[in-house]
Amino acid sequence: MNTAAKPLVLHEDRLFPSDPAQRAIARRLYAQIAGLPIVSPHGHTDPSWWADDAPFANATELLLVPDHYIFRMLYSQGIPLDALGIPRADGSRAGVDPREAWRVFARNTHLFRGTPSSLWLDHVFAEVFGLGVRLDAGTADHYYDTITDALKTAAFRPRALFERFGIEVIATTESPLDPLSHHQAIRDSGWSGRVVTAYRPDPVIDPEHEQFRPSLERFGELTGENVYDWDGYLRAHQQRRAFFAAMGATSTDHGHPTCATADLVPAQARALFTRIVAGKSLPEEAELFRAQMLTEMAAMSVDDGLVMQIHPGSFRNHNRALFDRHGRDKGADIPMRTDYVRALKPLLDRYGNEAGFRLIVFTLDESTYARELAPLAGHWPCLFLGPAWWFHDSPEGMWRFREQTLGTAGFYNTVGFNDDTRAFLSIPARHDVARRVDCAVLAKLVAEHRLDEDDAAEVAVDLAYRLPKQAYRL
Amino acid sequence: MNTAAKPLVLHEDRLFPSDPAQRAIARRLYAQIAGLPIVSPHGHTDPSWWADDAPFANATELLLVPDHYIFRMLYSQGIPLDALGIPRADGSRAGVDPREAWRVFARNTHLFRGTPSSLWLDHVFAEVFGLGVRLDAGTADHYYDTITDALKTAAFRPRALFERFGIEVIATTESPLDPLSHHQAIRDSGWSGRVVTAYRPDPVIDPEHEQFRPSLERFGELTGENVYDWDGYLRAHQQRRAFFAAMGATSTDHGHPTCATADLVPAQARALFTRIVAGKSLPEEAELFRAQMLTEMAAMSVDDGLVMQIHPGSFRNHNRALFDRHGRDKGADIPMRTDYVRALKPLLDRYGNEAGFRLIVFTLDESTYARELAPLAGHWPCLFLGPAWWFHDSPEGMWRFREQTLGTAGFYNTVGFNDDTRAFLSIPARHDVARRVDCAVLAKLVAEHRLDEDDAAEVAVDLAYRLPKQAYRL
Amino acid sequence: MNTAAKPLVLHEDRLFPSDPAQRAIARRLYAQIAGLPIVSPHGHTDPSWWADDAPFANATELLLVPDHYIFRMLYSQGIPLDALGIPRADGSRAGVDPREAWRVFARNTHLFRGTPSSLWLDHVFAEVFGLGVRLDAGTADHYYDTITDALKTAAFRPRALFERFGIEVIATTESPLDPLSHHQAIRDSGWSGRVVTAYRPDPVIDPEHEQFRPSLERFGELTGENVYDWDGYLRAHQQRRAFFAAMGATSTDHGHPTCATADLVPAQARALFTRIVAGKSLPEEAELFRAQMLTEMAAMSVDDGLVMQIHPGSFRNHNRALFDRHGRDKGADIPMRTDYVRALKPLLDRYGNEAGFRLIVFTLDESTYARELAPLAGHWPCLFLGPAWWFHDSPEGMWRFREQTLGTAGFYNTVGFNDDTRAFLSIPARHDVARRVDCAVLAKLVAEHRLDEDDAAEVAVDLAYRLPKQAYRL
Repeated sequence: MNTAAKPLVLHEDRLFPSDPAQRAIARRLYAQIAGLPIVSPHGHTDPSWWADDAPFANATELLLVPDHYIFRMLYSQGIPLDALGIPRADGSRAGVDPREAWRVFARNTHLFRGTPSSLWLDHVFAEVFGLGVRLDAGTADHYYDTITDALKTAAFRPRALFERFGIEVIATTESPLDPLSHHQAIRDSGWSGRVVTAYRPDPVIDPEHEQFRPSLERFGELTGENVYDWDGYLRAHQQRRAFFAAMGATSTDHGHPTCATADLVPAQARALFTRIVAGKSLPEEAELFRAQMLTEMAAMSVDDGLVMQIHPGSFRNHNRALFDRHGRDKGADIPMRTDYVRALKPLLDRYGNEAGFRLIVFTLDESTYARELAPLAGHWPCLFLGPAWWFHDSPEGMWRFREQTLGTAGFYNTVGFNDDTRAFLSIPARHDVARRVDCAVLAKLVAEHRLDEDDAAEVAVDLAYRLPKQAYRL
Repeated sequence: MNTAAKPLVLHEDRLFPSDPAQRAIARRLYAQIAGLPIVSPHGHTDPSWWADDAPFANATELLLVPDHYIFRMLYSQGIPLDALGIPRADGSRAGVDPREAWRVFARNTHLFRGTPSSLWLDHVFAEVFGLGVRLDAGTADHYYDTITDALKTAAFRPRALFERFGIEVIATTESPLDPLSHHQAIRDSGWSGRVVTAYRPDPVIDPEHEQFRPSLERFGELTGENVYDWDGYLRAHQQRRAFFAAMGATSTDHGHPTCATADLVPAQARALFTRIVAGKSLPEEAELFRAQMLTEMAAMSVDDGLVMQIHPGSFRNHNRALFDRHGRDKGADIPMRTDYVRALKPLLDRYGNEAGFRLIVFTLDESTYARELAPLAGHWPCLFLGPAWWFHDSPEGMWRFREQTLGTAGFYNTVGFNDDTRAFLSIPARHDVARRVDCAVLAKLVAEHRLDEDDAAEVAVDLAYRLPKQAYRL
Repeated sequence: MNTAAKPLVLHEDRLFPSDPAQRAIARRLYAQIAGLPIVSPHGHTDPSWWADDAPFANATELLLVPDHYIFRMLYSQGIPLDALGIPRADGSRAGVDPREAWRVFARNTHLFRGTPSSLWLDHVFAEVFGLGVRLDAGTADHYYDTITDALKTAAFRPRALFERFGIEVIATTESPLDPLSHHQAIRDSGWSGRVVTAYRPDPVIDPEHEQFRPSLERFGELTGENVYDWDGYLRAHQQRRAFFAAMGATSTDHGHPTCATADLVPAQARALFTRIVAGKSLPEEAELFRAQMLTEMAAMSVDDGLVMQIHPGSFRNHNRALFDRHGRDKGADIPMRTDYVRALKPLLDRYGNEAGFRLIVFTLDESTYARELAPLAGHWPCLFLGPAWWFHDSPEGMWRFREQTLGTAGFYNTVGFNDDTRAFLSIPARHDVARRVDCAVLAKLVAEHRLDEDDAAEVAVDLAYRLPKQAYRL
């Protein structure tokens, strides 16, 4: 480490408004929620971490390779993914030394100035690894060694970190085809950490998914149902949902390109499914089938009580050459304009007034916050708004979410925070950012005499802890 | 009332920025406009209140039943409308005690934290009824009794409140089929309050309105014109507009699903109308007819000087089951994406440069503020922007309106505030919120040295008083 | 000048937040960049000004007639363009005295309160002409005389102003048909000012351009190529691009109605072009041809290194009567909703990963900042975001640009500021506004402990100076 290293300090007032009146209120509100347990009802961590409790390999494997926020930003400035050790579509890797990949990252930290990645990373570096200098070209090796050495110790094993982070419950996301053996192993181990799954059936629902046909076949094998028959296919879902629920799941998750829903009469739905599995459907029927399946999933949620989530609006794999070389989920998904008003009406007209039904909707199209989503959530009893998500999980994005939904939906038609991440170490950082921003939003309301401070304190606890537990039935 | 009741205080600086420099300026600006008379050029109060001057019944009937902002929020959390005494579509009511309905509301005031409803309600409670404690489960009966008792007194009769509120003029909204007998009664009574009507012809213009056919028939009876003939139909409009103008109307109002306008040659318009009234039109021709009629209304405005308003973009009655049970206007209308650029061009190309023509356009799609509406209003001489409306009448919504229209349209292509409400008692509260927010916006400009304070003071008076009078020719 | 004239003072802290913590930081950051040279990589100044160095005529000709921001605002309030001396489509003018036109403007300065025009004008009045009182009806003649007199002096000739303004380099924009004789004259003169051109081929690319056919003919004459043959047409572009590059151009600019791109196989492209030049194309093929040509221009940029710019989304000449009377570019262009995700994919899939290729994209649809443009720029190596543009160049618009792109694209996928103006005297004012707003944005990040102040200072210099030079290869 060179002697010119810059200090890294997490300021205790970070993300609070600099106006003294607002800052003082934000501090007081935050003090009451900073230590609350983490409830993580939606995310993509790997359950094998807690099943096996094996140490993480090194800084690059832990922090760089799984974080598409980081490597897409580097790629956007002309750095090849191979130089960062990102796997190829066939599972192979360029023969890059992980330390070299880390140095490339370290030389380019200026790209992240002002982004949420820099907030999360600094939190991880300072709080989890106790690093006191900034990451840059001069400190790259110091960082790499400090982190990699720490990972060899017992305190940095997955279960130890889970406990240190104060996680009360975390949900992973699995395909219906997953045997949930890691979740079973966690339960069998006697470890007290609560890790639950969530039912994400996209591969057996989306006829355009590249794995649709083999997935459907495996779906049939696993359930013993004739999944090429409409009734058998629906029973297979019911069966796997029941299994997931038995393994702790309280929710389902649906990542469709749009939010379209349909409510076909049963004979039409059956005929559509028959054309789909026979490979005789028209191109636009894939969309109609996904739409119908959202309504079928809603029907099952009415029965089994699993909370339904829809995450629409991403154009997947926008870069063809990069997809061919490196495969899915490599930072090349781009949001699209998304309609909710007409799209959700068939499902809502069918089940939207059912007492036990709960539907959490997310968006990547912020123009719908005030125009569509807050009005929908501010009317329909089943409907709740998921938090600012993915491209919108910056402090600015969280402010926009609150400022554009508050007037019509209030706080109580929202569900608190989702970290939605594969980057395990960033989970406390992400929840901390969300809690700080919510306290800042509330502090502004208090400072402008729109909300009493004791009421704001209650809202702060609700957003950080009570609402996610309640909304997700955790 | 229990002893733990929380105090209710309207802070004198509410809604002003907490930054001391901005707050001091906002205070000074507000002091100059706080006492200006209320000009309410667009709204939905019931003229029979001032015609009959009968007392309001009780707290629930006055404040809860007519306010869809409140009962839709309660419905969104699973509270049936019947539990609140909201009328059914057939006019019947669930046999709910109004005091019980009020208690349900009182137990759920947390839902309104941070919403404009809480601002308006607190203002009504504190300023109009002198209540000094917050509404909650413990104070529900105290509230119900205090309000209901007050309503029995002379000071809380409609005319007395009108005068107490400092209303200089208020516009109601009536169908062309309305005989305007309440307005006549107000005039005949010798009372000095100025209550005018506005011409809202949707039921006789929209072929998809459920009351279109009977409305058309009544339109013919009322005017003595053959309204099944294109010329007679247009003459009927001219006649009713003249009658409305004679009864004080200075404006028309058009609540179409989109902002589409058309400029058909007369023979096409006539043929379209003939197909419409013969029930032989194609489904898309209803939209074309509404579009053509906006241009016909503009033509009549050029002649008779009535200011034209378009309020587009609402998907009406999104909840089918609720509509079947409770009917229209029950908080289930949801905004939609709205285009203005192509939509308005036919009307604007025809009449947009006419010296006497004035068109005020509203939106429920905030993404059009900076992109479409401010550029249109910043060019076309006839065009003015209506204020942040309905789902966007929160302080945040008003800030977005100003921040997204100011750069291109300035302040002087806008028309000041509309309260647009049926909730009579909230009118002073709503105007007060708008005035405070405008002062806050201006204070920021002054504090950032973009506007001299004396110019800001002139703008504040213009927005609160001069512009609405001038824009609406009141 | 009357005695009641109001003082005009440019406050040294203008546009900085009034919060003392943020303001102090903003001041320090701004002090480090206020004196940096102006890099103006995109604009519409007239190269003849520096070729001929002739004096400007008077206040009205210099400041009012070329500034569509000003005369469209006056028009929006009913002032005819003829009263301002704006030329007609046929080149004639209403016989208006320029001093009278100036007085009309002076009487209406309240319309510009809070708009960017008022910021720019005040800067020009105070800094360039040393005026110490505000423009209004009472000071109109004082202004007119002061400015008109100054323009007669050597210090106010175009080259002297260029040097006084500290312009390091400025780009103009020319059609491929332009002989660039003014640029040649500037070079031949030995004057040291750097004025470069940019290649704007819309008239020979857009089949719907009113001058398409004569432009194409002239394109052939100028290049000696058979431009009615696809290969000859492409060679003509290559030849003119090379000529423009030799005259200093480092970029091309494309002002299409949409951002649509296409990647036809060569035989299809050839056949399409053949139909276009034969006048036998379908209406929708004009759009397809423009789309294909963007990809052809990208191919040429890969070869010759010219940086490509796309400025989509304007509905041109929205007011038919005004267009007939006064022609193009008279403040009647209105932004439209614009898609980028699907539109850019063909071009990006073809050239988006090429190492040397650089594409700068602009928008008039702010709803795409966070949803589409920041995610695209935060992934694709070729892609950079142009600054807040035209209708969005207000301080509020610049804040929205930063707050909505920062999280996903960071600062380093943006390119600093473009003034994009014909209004020469406003150039220092416009750059000053952009620098102040960027310092304000950075100050907020520093004050909220999200960025170290030394890093913010580096970003401030990058945005004001290094990034535009680097992005545009200047």
